Amino acid sequence: MTDSPSSVPKTLSPQWNEQGLIPTITQDADTGEVLMLAWMNAEALEKTLAGRQVVYWSRSRQALWRKGETSGNTQDLVDAHLDCDGDTLLLRVKQHGAGACHTGRRTCFFYAPGETGWQLTEDG
Amino acid sequence: MTDSPSSVPKTLSPQWNEQGLIPTITQDADTGEVLMLAWMNAEALEKTLAGRQVVYWSRSRQALWRKGETSGNTQDLVDAHLDCDGDTLLLRVKQHGAGACHTGRRTCFFYAPGETGWQLTEDG
Repeated sequence: MTDSPSSVPKTLSPQWNEQGLIPTITQDADTGEVLMLAWMNAEALEKTLAGRQVVYWSRSRQALWRKGETSGNTQDLVDAHLDCDGDTLLLRVKQHGAGACHTGRRTCFFYAPGETGWQLTEDG
Repeated sequence: MTDSPSSVPKTLSPQWNEQGLIPTITQDADTGEVLMLAWMNAEALEKTLAGRQVVYWSRSRQALWRKGETSGNTQDLVDAHLDCDGDTLLLRVKQHGAGACHTGRRTCFFYAPGETGWQLTEDG
C-alpha cells in the first residue's frame, strides 16, 4: 500500500474485556526481547503508571500482583503504549533479577515447534 | 535470585482459552518492534506453521484471517515460540508493505499516557 496512515482518534481509553482485564505485553527496553504476557485490571494499570513499577492482575490468584514482590525480579516501567483499538497494552521495562519468567528464565517464551509438538529450546 | 532456572516439561501444548483461542504477539524479526497482538485458533496456528505466512482468527468476523490478504501487508513467519504455561504465542515475522496496523502504521501501539488520558503519539 502507498496510502498515508489513516486518521485516528487523538485520545483513546483502554478497552477492558468482560472480566475487566486487558492483555499486557512486556518487552525488555534494552534488548527488545519480549519477556511475557500478563493481564491488568484498571487498578493494576493505575498503580503501574503512578508508581513506575509494574503491577499485574493475577487471574489464578484473583489478586493484584506486584511483579517480583517475592522473587526480587521487579520491572521498572520505561514506557507504555496502548494499541489502535485500545484492547492491548505494551510495556517496555527494565527487568531486574534473573528474568521475567517464574521458572527463573529471562523470557517466558522458550518452547518452539518441533517434530513432536512444542519442545523446550536449547537455551530454555 | 541466584537460583538456576527450574526444570520444566520438555514438551508443551498450546492452551486454548474457553473460546478455543490463544493470544499471539507479533514482533518484527528485523527491528524487534512489537507490531500487534491478535488471536489464533488451532486451524490458524496449523496454517501459519505449515504455510509460513501468518493466519489469525478474527474475533469480530469469526473467521480465519490471512494477514494482508486485502492490504498486501502480509507477514512471513520467521519463528514461533510458546510461553512457559502454554497460553501465549510469540511470532517473529518479516512484515511486508506499510506495516502491521490496519490504519497503515508500522505498529499498532501508538497511544501513550498523557495528562488527559491515552494520546496519539507524535510519530503515530
